[in-house]
Amino acid sequence: MTKALFVLMTPLAMLAMTDHNLMPVPAQLQAGQGRLRIDGNFRVELTGYREARLEAAAARLTGNLSRSTGIPIHPGASAATLLIHCGHASAVVQKAREDESYRLVVTAQQARLDAPNPLGVLRGMETFLQMVDLDAAGFGVTAAEIADQPRFAWRGLMLDVSRHWMPLDAVKRTLDGMAAVKLNVFHWHLSDNQGFRVESLRFPKLAGMGSDDHYFTQQQVRELIAYARERGIRVIPEFDMPGHATAWFVGYPELASGPGPYAIDREWGVFDPAMDPTREEVYRFLDTFIGEMAALFPDAYFHIGGDEVNGKQWDANARIQKFKQAHGWTDKEKGNQELQAYFTERVQKLVEKHGKTMIGWDEVLTPDLPRNVLVQSWRGQKSLAAAARQGVDGILSHGYYLDLMYSAADHYAADPLGDGAADLNEEQRQRILGGEACMWSEYVTAEMLDARVWPRMAAIAERLWSPQQVTDVADMYRRLDVVSRELEWLGLTHVSQYEKMLERLANGAPVEPVRTLAEVVEGVKEYAREEVLKYTSLSPLNRLVDTARPESEVARHFAVLVEARDLEKMRAWLLRWRDNDARLAPIEAKSELLAEDAEISRELSLVAVAGLQALDYIQSGQHAPAEWIERQTALLEQARKPKGVLLLSVEPPIRKLIEAAR
Amino acid sequence: MTKALFVLMTPLAMLAMTDHNLMPVPAQLQAGQGRLRIDGNFRVELTGYREARLEAAAARLTGNLSRSTGIPIHPGASAATLLIHCGHASAVVQKAREDESYRLVVTAQQARLDAPNPLGVLRGMETFLQMVDLDAAGFGVTAAEIADQPRFAWRGLMLDVSRHWMPLDAVKRTLDGMAAVKLNVFHWHLSDNQGFRVESLRFPKLAGMGSDDHYFTQQQVRELIAYARERGIRVIPEFDMPGHATAWFVGYPELASGPGPYAIDREWGVFDPAMDPTREEVYRFLDTFIGEMAALFPDAYFHIGGDEVNGKQWDANARIQKFKQAHGWTDKEKGNQELQAYFTERVQKLVEKHGKTMIGWDEVLTPDLPRNVLVQSWRGQKSLAAAARQGVDGILSHGYYLDLMYSAADHYAADPLGDGAADLNEEQRQRILGGEACMWSEYVTAEMLDARVWPRMAAIAERLWSPQQVTDVADMYRRLDVVSRELEWLGLTHVSQYEKMLERLANGAPVEPVRTLAEVVEGVKEYAREEVLKYTSLSPLNRLVDTARPESEVARHFAVLVEARDLEKMRAWLLRWRDNDARLAPIEAKSELLAEDAEISRELSLVAVAGLQALDYIQSGQHAPAEWIERQTALLEQARKPKGVLLLSVEPPIRKLIEAAR
Repeated sequence: MTKALFVLMTPLAMLAMTDHNLMPVPAQLQAGQGRLRIDGNFRVELTGYREARLEAAAARLTGNLSRSTGIPIHPGASAATLLIHCGHASAVVQKAREDESYRLVVTAQQARLDAPNPLGVLRGMETFLQMVDLDAAGFGVTAAEIADQPRFAWRGLMLDVSRHWMPLDAVKRTLDGMAAVKLNVFHWHLSDNQGFRVESLRFPKLAGMGSDDHYFTQQQVRELIAYARERGIRVIPEFDMPGHATAWFVGYPELASGPGPYAIDREWGVFDPAMDPTREEVYRFLDTFIGEMAALFPDAYFHIGGDEVNGKQWDANARIQKFKQAHGWTDKEKGNQELQAYFTERVQKLVEKHGKTMIGWDEVLTPDLPRNVLVQSWRGQKSLAAAARQGVDGILSHGYYLDLMYSAADHYAADPLGDGAADLNEEQRQRILGGEACMWSEYVTAEMLDARVWPRMAAIAERLWSPQQVTDVADMYRRLDVVSRELEWLGLTHVSQYEKMLERLANGAPVEPVRTLAEVVEGVKEYAREEVLKYTSLSPLNRLVDTARPESEVARHFAVLVEARDLEKMRAWLLRWRDNDARLAPIEAKSELLAEDAEISRELSLVAVAGLQALDYIQSGQHAPAEWIERQTALLEQARKPKGVLLLSVEPPIRKLIEAAR
Repeated sequence: MTKALFVLMTPLAMLAMTDHNLMPVPAQLQAGQGRLRIDGNFRVELTGYREARLEAAAARLTGNLSRSTGIPIHPGASAATLLIHCGHASAVVQKAREDESYRLVVTAQQARLDAPNPLGVLRGMETFLQMVDLDAAGFGVTAAEIADQPRFAWRGLMLDVSRHWMPLDAVKRTLDGMAAVKLNVFHWHLSDNQGFRVESLRFPKLAGMGSDDHYFTQQQVRELIAYARERGIRVIPEFDMPGHATAWFVGYPELASGPGPYAIDREWGVFDPAMDPTREEVYRFLDTFIGEMAALFPDAYFHIGGDEVNGKQWDANARIQKFKQAHGWTDKEKGNQELQAYFTERVQKLVEKHGKTMIGWDEVLTPDLPRNVLVQSWRGQKSLAAAARQGVDGILSHGYYLDLMYSAADHYAADPLGDGAADLNEEQRQRILGGEACMWSEYVTAEMLDARVWPRMAAIAERLWSPQQVTDVADMYRRLDVVSRELEWLGLTHVSQYEKMLERLANGAPVEPVRTLAEVVEGVKEYAREEVLKYTSLSPLNRLVDTARPESEVARHFAVLVEARDLEKMRAWLLRWRDNDARLAPIEAKSELLAEDAEISRELSLVAVAGLQALDYIQSGQHAPAEWIERQTALLEQARKPKGVLLLSVEPPIRKLIEAAR
């Protein structure tokens, strides 16, 4: 956190903030005079401290600029367009609290970027790239002065590559997107019940038997870590234990608390298998394994998971029961927690022995937990605050679960220092390092990974980087739209792949009716999907629920029209929705993938008819009769209910419209 | 050519042909009974002759199937879905006339693919993949029996990577698309005035000074050749000489006929520099160079270009003039042609010495040309026929120049054995091996490469593979639409990149008005673009003319509506066009990239108004007054003229509509 800058920030600078497309919003921004032209002579010059990473970043900046503008860049010997000065080298292995600040001054003649540390140069380059835009005179950058640094030191994304395999290029794309919005931690969830995704040379059966041959070789891991470092991103591996570990047991059943054999899990949930915390062989195995992985992953932190152990295998194992009794962990409720605390403590010592700081999910937080750990909270700020009061560092993930299909605005509202952490003292607040979004992959394949992460991730990135006062939701959405297009130019596929998935659903028929429906539905939230249908890791994810965006942009826009009483535009939308079912029906009849969408499509037409009637009442200046309101309300009650795995996301604004006709 | 199959083909088989989405159309197809289901258990089994290439192709087929359907494939031990039998190995280096035939029988229980040669297996796999479709019951393949083989042995695409650099991944994507439509020759135009694009270890200054550092390393060349071989595609390099060779002279001015120094050309056209055919050092250089490249590129053919020498440097060089006089080549018109023939003959001997058959463009065809060469004709079938009568092999490129922006139907109509080659005897016909499309890259960067090649290339691929009687243009377009979507699933970007380019033009504003205009314009044809504006290789290609498709699909559809007198649908289009200019104008005002489109946008609105009036006359049963017809005709005359580099492609059908109102 960067108190100094907050003090410096004038109201004028705050005012200027609404006039740009930067995301995350920089700490300080002052508009300048004039505009720097961007053309084929664009040239970056590095001064001060230099290293290969900065040269590569300059070339990447030039390439990205050329790609997004379509301008071939072939600079001559003229003055640099972007003059960069870097103060000194960064840490050999990127640290959690390194200086990422930078200063960027753009005039009509030149842009100058100054940063003490290469990390600041990388961040400033992304800001510069976001400033390039097109006007009536061509591409350029409007003059401005920016002084910027992050509010939180830890700004991450966790990616689960276990439940569904994500190949290397998908992970690289993810890192490209992360760098664009100044995130700096990639948390790689590499093992779970459904797959062990990294090669171990010491224990080849881990990936050999636990991955369906979908795993990262150590060479690929090193390649990925180097790719991340080039972008100023740390890579932290997670190996979940003692639960969520079935994939380990396929090759090494002796680690488990119950008898084998084990097979890779194809379903989701909290399962019984767990490591046996009572056997020394398990710790010897983990010692060797952690040692191997600690050498492979250079980051100072090492994640051991530690979440969701149901204790059933422990309860069913007589030897483990004896062990618990011998230690006095006999309480029916707490005994297994105490056993897990014992396990965590042993593992923490191993992690420390190999030179790392342990990270675990909330469950690892016990009163005796040493301070040299970090808690990642899926439970919330209260849990983090408890850790902080105990002197333990923490990061927030609660509120940032991208897989739960909530809106960008929802995520944007979650603040690591808000809610249950709001009343910490300054020293305790310093223990909350930041946050990490989580992309659990039960319902996500590489195909729609980008569409599930982006652009919503950018809103979280802003929450973690920008001053706490930056909370204008409408302006966030305005800029999110811009950053979304920029991300596609970087190679992310959240737009282009969405188009392909729509085409697949339409099955050769015109895609528009499918799009019209897809744009006003959302998948059910949280874990409701698994209550509707039994999914496994082998279920095709190729239906409307997999295609539709987590958040309906059209519903959001329509809600704005209702607020603004823009009758004409509302009518155009409602007519389109009313007529869509008739257009979609013949397409549905020929595409098995669309068959389940008939009901929600019909419902869209019905609520659109209700909306059109409401418009008629409003336009004629009549009050809608109570009896009509009553019938429409019943209709909307029905429309509000999930249709299978889908929600009709225009129901709430249409409800408001009908209320307005009263 | 495969006469035997033509005889076997019954009218019934011909009838069945219109009921599938295959492209190219197979030689023989019979519909069967039932449907083979495609699900997560999909499994390919290889029997008979096996090799790593076939294993890789089976894995690729499975991966492509999984990607396009969205079905995760995880087969158990059940019977193979696709059972393949291959007879024997293919040639170590793929030959020009290898057996590519296959037989594919699909029943409701299983698909069986038989081919004597792995090449046939590769072709049959592509057919199988094209047969997978979706119906109300899910994904599957409708039962059928196919016996297939190509009409022509040589089915290629030439890609110019010199005028604009095309990086390795763009070339690989191109090969993916080629394999999908059964093309088998990739002709790599690696050197020209604007760049020398391959590493030479013997002459490092060729790429070192002649490429702006945009060249393929030998390692990349080997990788690309292996990638092509995996897909049954031969790779033939072209090093254009003695003209089109400025890029050689940057590093090695001593090869040229005029004094240096030379710089990489940034403009297009036929320039003066040419190699000096009179100096033995030049042939020694070429001997070494061709030797090095002949070893790098295993194909039996080697292309030496030979086109477009204007002779000016020769005329200006006293020593060369003397050399010509000494040889008696003194005719003002023919002297330089004789000199070039001498050069070609010398180079042909070098090519032959290094074990290759020389290819050259039409210009190399002289009465004394040895028979062990192949002529690639940009001039037409007459030129090919002349070669064939002389006993020289040939391939057709005239009619297949994708850069000239003609329609798929135009290319589809060009037949290597049509026009000037129609009256050859059977032996001469055998000398015409097939054809090659050409993608010259004056106005093409990697960004829109796919959109310029695809899907039109698929129509040419069909011309070269399918029986000569397959000429139904409407059915070609129907299938082209399907194959276009399939190509996107393979990773081609002709659709997704088009969308991004529209977004760039729209500059953050709604993209629809830009799309509406883009869909009804085409770039000017042939070489008219260079008459409008001076382009260089450094000009940005990011405007409407670069974004618009070579062929307006909407204009084609509208022409069908005019034919069918579908007044209602015509009215919907015309209203949209009439109103588009008002929607586009504010976007144009904020985007320098769109500024030049104001005139054609206004014209679209004007002709749409005329069309709407014509509809009114037709609907009211009135004849339009002659005076009105006259005014509209004048308007259309104006609209027919190019607006800068753009053509209004709906002008012809709207003209027909106005004629219909008479």
